[in-house]
Parts: sequence; C-alpha cells; structure tokens
Amino acid sequence: MGKTLAINAGSSTLKWKLFAMPEETVIASGMVDRLNLPGSIFKVKLADGQKFTETQDKITNKLAAAMVLTRLKSYGIVQHLSEITGVGHRVVAGGEVFKDSAVITPTVLKQIKELKDYAPLHNPVQAYYIDVFQQLLPEAQQVAVFDTSLYTQMPAMNYLYSLPYAYYEKFGARKYGAHGTSHRYVAKRTAELLGQPLEALKLITLHLGSGSSITAFDHGQALDTSMGFTPLAGVMMGTRSGDVDPSLVAYLAEKLQKTMPEMIDILNHQSGLLGISELSPDQRDLEDTQADRPKSKLALDMFVNRVVRYVGSYVAELGGVDAIAFTAGSGENGIAMRQDIADQLAGLNIAIDPAKNDFRGEERVISPDGAAVKVLVVPTNEELMIVRDVARLTH
Amino acid sequence: MGKTLAINAGSSTLKWKLFAMPEETVIASGMVDRLNLPGSIFKVKLADGQKFTETQDKITNKLAAAMVLTRLKSYGIVQHLSEITGVGHRVVAGGEVFKDSAVITPTVLKQIKELKDYAPLHNPVQAYYIDVFQQLLPEAQQVAVFDTSLYTQMPAMNYLYSLPYAYYEKFGARKYGAHGTSHRYVAKRTAELLGQPLEALKLITLHLGSGSSITAFDHGQALDTSMGFTPLAGVMMGTRSGDVDPSLVAYLAEKLQKTMPEMIDILNHQSGLLGISELSPDQRDLEDTQADRPKSKLALDMFVNRVVRYVGSYVAELGGVDAIAFTAGSGENGIAMRQDIADQLAGLNIAIDPAKNDFRGEERVISPDGAAVKVLVVPTNEELMIVRDVARLTH
Repeated sequence: MGKTLAINAGSSTLKWKLFAMPEETVIASGMVDRLNLPGSIFKVKLADGQKFTETQDKITNKLAAAMVLTRLKSYGIVQHLSEITGVGHRVVAGGEVFKDSAVITPTVLKQIKELKDYAPLHNPVQAYYIDVFQQLLPEAQQVAVFDTSLYTQMPAMNYLYSLPYAYYEKFGARKYGAHGTSHRYVAKRTAELLGQPLEALKLITLHLGSGSSITAFDHGQALDTSMGFTPLAGVMMGTRSGDVDPSLVAYLAEKLQKTMPEMIDILNHQSGLLGISELSPDQRDLEDTQADRPKSKLALDMFVNRVVRYVGSYVAELGGVDAIAFTAGSGENGIAMRQDIADQLAGLNIAIDPAKNDFRGEERVISPDGAAVKVLVVPTNEELMIVRDVARLTH
Repeated sequence: MGKTLAINAGSSTLKWKLFAMPEETVIASGMVDRLNLPGSIFKVKLADGQKFTETQDKITNKLAAAMVLTRLKSYGIVQHLSEITGVGHRVVAGGEVFKDSAVITPTVLKQIKELKDYAPLHNPVQAYYIDVFQQLLPEAQQVAVFDTSLYTQMPAMNYLYSLPYAYYEKFGARKYGAHGTSHRYVAKRTAELLGQPLEALKLITLHLGSGSSITAFDHGQALDTSMGFTPLAGVMMGTRSGDVDPSLVAYLAEKLQKTMPEMIDILNHQSGLLGISELSPDQRDLEDTQADRPKSKLALDMFVNRVVRYVGSYVAELGGVDAIAFTAGSGENGIAMRQDIADQLAGLNIAIDPAKNDFRGEERVISPDGAAVKVLVVPTNEELMIVRDVARLTH
C-alpha cells in the first residue's frame, strides 16, 4: 500500500495528516487556519519534529488543498503525488443514507451535498474538498467518513424524538449524533486495551472537549448518544448549552426580541461553560479561577453533573457497564474533572485510583486494580480511524 | 378544627375536595367541567357514594365557585358556610418567590398574578378563584400551595440551564419543576410505608400520568426533577414531547413555516405518545393495540426508555437509591408498564415481583422481599397535601 491522507475540513480550517499504510505511521501533518481571511496560516509538522509555518493573506479552500500537496513534495515527504493512493475525508452529516463510510462516486458526492441541511457549515465545504482532491489526485481512491454513520444503527426508540412521527418521515427529524469517528476509534481501542472483543462489552465512551458527547455501546453497536439532531444537544459544552427546555428558548426569544436562528446561535456560541462562568469556555481557565470565582466553580460543577447524568442514564439503558473511557481534550487531560466525575459515579460502582489518574494524554487504565467497571483514558485518533476506513473500503 | 376545601383550578375545570380536619376524611368532592362553554357539567360525590350531576350552559368561573358552596349547603354537607375554616388553592407557578406554601395576603395574591408569565393558562385563573373564595368565605383562611415550591430548594447546579447566566438573573431562566405537590405527598408517604424518616432516604418518585415527571429526593430535599422551565420538558408524556434538541424545533419551524409559539403548541399537544403512535395519548389504548400496530408498541417502548434514562441519571446523581415509588394514573395502574420499567432497570439492582405488581391503584411494596432497592406504588393525593398545608400554616 501507499500513503493515505486524512482530511478534516471545517468552515475556516483544513486539518490533514499523512499516514504510511499499512504501518499506520504518521509521516506529516498540518493545518491551514483562517482560510479566506487576512493572515491565513499554513502549518506543517514532519515526523522528525521539524515544523514549518507560512503566512499568506486569504488562502482559498482550493489553494489550501493545492498547497498541502505541493509542500509535501517540496519538503521531500513524497517524491511523486502518485504515492498518495488514498484520501479519507471527514464528513459531518451522513443522514440516514450513509450507514458506513463510503468510497466516493459521483452519486455519493451528490448525496453529501444534498445532506447540507443537516450540517450547513460543514457538508458543502467538505464536498468541495472532495471535488478538489479528486482533481488534484485523480488516481487516488477517495473515501468519505461520516461523523454520523455509527448512529444509524441505533434502535428507533433511541434515535426518534417524541414528536409527530411524520416529522421523521418528511423532514428526517431524529437523533443523528456526532463525533462518531472518535467514539468508534475509542471503543475499539478500549476493547483492545482490555483484551476483549468489543462485541463482548457494554461500554460508555466520553468524548469531552470543547464539544462533548457521550455514547453507549452495547456489544459493539451504538445504543444511544447524547448529541441530537444537531451537535447542540446533550451535555454542557464549552460554548454550547446541551439540553434545554425548548419552551425556555421560545420564551427567551420573545423576551430578547430575537429570532429563533439568533437564539440557536446564542445556544451554540454564548452558552455552556462560557455562558455560566462569564469568563471562558475552557475548563483550564475555570479550574485556575474557581477558588476566587464562584461562577467558574459553578460552571465546572454543572459540567460534571451533566456528564454524570448521562453516564447514569446509559448505565441504566445498557443494564450495567463493563468500562467507561475518557477521550478528547478535557477527557485526556482533565485530571481533576475525571476524578470529580468518577467520585459522583461511586453509587454505580465506578471509581478511579487517584494515583493512576495523575497524568495527561496517554492510554491508561485508571480504575483501581480488580475494579468491576474499568475506567480508561484513551486519546482519540480520528485521522487514524479515517485512514483505516480508506484501507478497509478500497482493498 | 373545621372543614377545609382543596381547590384545583385549571383553564376549563374546577376540581375540589372537602376534608374534615384533623381527621383528613373526605366529606365530598366534585368537579366543574367545560367552564364557560356550552354544556358545562357540575358533578358532586358524597362520602356515602351518592353522586349528583347538573348540566347548565356556560357556567362561569365565579358561578362555579358559588355553586360549590351553595350545593354543599343544599346537600346538607355543611349547615353554615362558616364551618369551612380553610381553603387551599393549587397554584402552578410560584417562581423563586414561594419556597413553601403561603397564607394568602394581598401581597401574596399580587405576586401570584405577577408570576403569570411562567404559567399563563393557570396562575391568572387560580388567582381569580382565590379572590372569589375570599369574597364568598371571608372568614376562612386561604392558602396557596405551589407546584414549584419543592424545587426552589434544588442546588443551583441542577436548576440552572447552561445558558448565559444573565438570563437567569434577568428573566428567571431556570428549571422550576412541576407536580411538586404530588411528589411531596408521595415521598412522605413512601417513607412512612417503609417505616423510615424521609430525611434518611434516597428516593426517586415517578409521577406518570398524562403529564409525567420524575423527582430525585436526597434525604428529604428535592435534588433534581425532569420537568423544566415549563412542564414541556423531561420524559415523554401523553401529548408532550419531553426533551428535544432545540435546534430541531427551530429547523422544523422553518420547514413547517410555523412560528415558535405554534411549534411549542405542537410540542405540548400533538407530540409524546400521541405523536409517535398516531393513535392516542393514552397508554391503555396503546397497550390494547400494540400487537397489531408497531407505532403503538414503539410509543410505549419510547416512554419506558425515557423513564429508564431519567431513573438512571438520578440514581447516578443521588449516588444510589433506597426506593422508587410509582404514582399518578399510569404509575398507579400501568401493571405492564411498571414491569417493563423495572425489567430495564435490572442493571441498577432494581426489580419488582410480578405477583406483587399485579394490581391497580393501591399502596403496596412491589419489590421482591429483601430487595435492596424498594419499589412501591403510592397513589398520589394532592388534595390531601393541600389541606395539610392549610392546617400547617394556619395554626
């Protein structure tokens, strides 16, 4: 096999990682930030630690893609672009159409574009990059890896909302979930670390970062997840509210004289840890200030509480749990937060050993020796999952 | 002491119950239905089982109150209206003002009226009846008993939403809960039946009826509840959605070309069991048809699932649970539903004995002998709680 590129495109960023396959080693990675804005930044990091940064005004999406490939050549990472035999693209919304990752065909690309209603800021730009990379690397196999495909397998009882049923049939009103690629990776890796097949386990994966979601795995299948129709729902996040009584949103819209789209924007960008703390969406800032600022402490307490509530509801739905795994920025690095969550889950026989928990960003089992419920930290690796899907689907 | 009247006024009904105190025996009860509509119905039931029904067009709220008192005299239940020494009024919204039931004063009545924003269909009419009964029974002590006062004691972390903090300060954006009088009664009665002080117990009360809510009691204090800013939130209900991603509501508003108040109306009146089953908001209708109608079965499954999720989250928050108690229409009578809920809670060590569970509408312990978590059925009695509050606050 050759080299495979994982592409993670956001509305103003392009993140990428180049893997040698099947070794799964990272050859280079990088990011283009502030796309289409003054002072766009192009960064590359090589496997040997070398870093390069370029600044240039208004790098377009198309130019960004071309720069990634030309710099890979100019830094000597690839001799010929034909060495890149696969490209995996993260796609946010796969609706109910995509129950797995998919090799790109004209039909698949068209469907991704048609799903833009479910991810207006992501699907169009991600489809655009698929187009561009098809032009730039016409020989490479392109694969779309959907954040949502994991959740198409959930039981109807869990993905449906208690709304008129016709809204599901006519408008696709259901829970689509998010962060599926991360949860898939972490669930699989957790099972490996425990030396058991994923299909033998009841598992809860906690992706806790600036966006947070929790997924319950029942013997390898996603049973439930905290993200909803959109990534607004579920647990409290950095700037997102998570679950809120919709009546309250309507009430506030009237009081504030805002439209619903404006309210949803507030719920996405001015709520969560930022909204309560009135300081920062970042847990580290709140931990640093909680001794003096009651609202910093309150925001952290609320976050822990919301996670605890979801874990409790998933332990109930699963009928017990074998392991829970922390991942993503806060999950991998939030030592105090992990301890607080575990302390509040004591009634469910979940515990962590403070000594084992005292580290950041590594794979570890942190529950006490012999604990019935294993607790782990498993750094996520969405890009690896993406290139694995490319390998799986193109061979 | 004398006789005490409990008044439960809705937008188009007036329910009442007359108690002899301190014996707490019901002397008479009744209901006026279809108020202000053609064919209003006035019903009375006496302690000896006698029933009287009158039909009359457009009985006004004021006439309804006067009729209750004149009929009490004409049926010989009271000789003089002065025998009625207390009147307790259910009031839906007490905001953060009323942390307990309150003896009516001009200020209290004014505050109840001012809280109408939080219960536009209830507080104004309930305040009106307080006015009317003060005129009709000028010597009786009047007490307002709030659905929400129980929940004013919850920790801020549980009553706050993860929204900008200023919305709480400026607009009272918080979880107020509902059914508090029922949960208070059932929690107290559960403790009595278990022969333990409420202050020694971790308890979850499940008020499951056409409206449903679940409350966690931590040693006598309300810790959390499923109802939200309004009674729309929480578990699935007969016609109410319970929790929904607010983004989805905004999305559907656009697709359906509805205003948000119209959407909230749909979420209140066309969702829940009715919305999913496309048949009925009543669990009995769905149980009767579930063998042939997959959507009836789906609606029931979803209801059970949502209850299970909340119980799980509250077991986690409480750090364990000593007892759970079913109450209200479905909770008291839904034999299969209780069994389904308990079966799915097996992972939390919650179980019921099918033989003990096979009855309707009585006080019983239905968990197996010696079970660590007691499960009970406790028929609710909001009117008794109301007149007890009258007694407590006026002596």
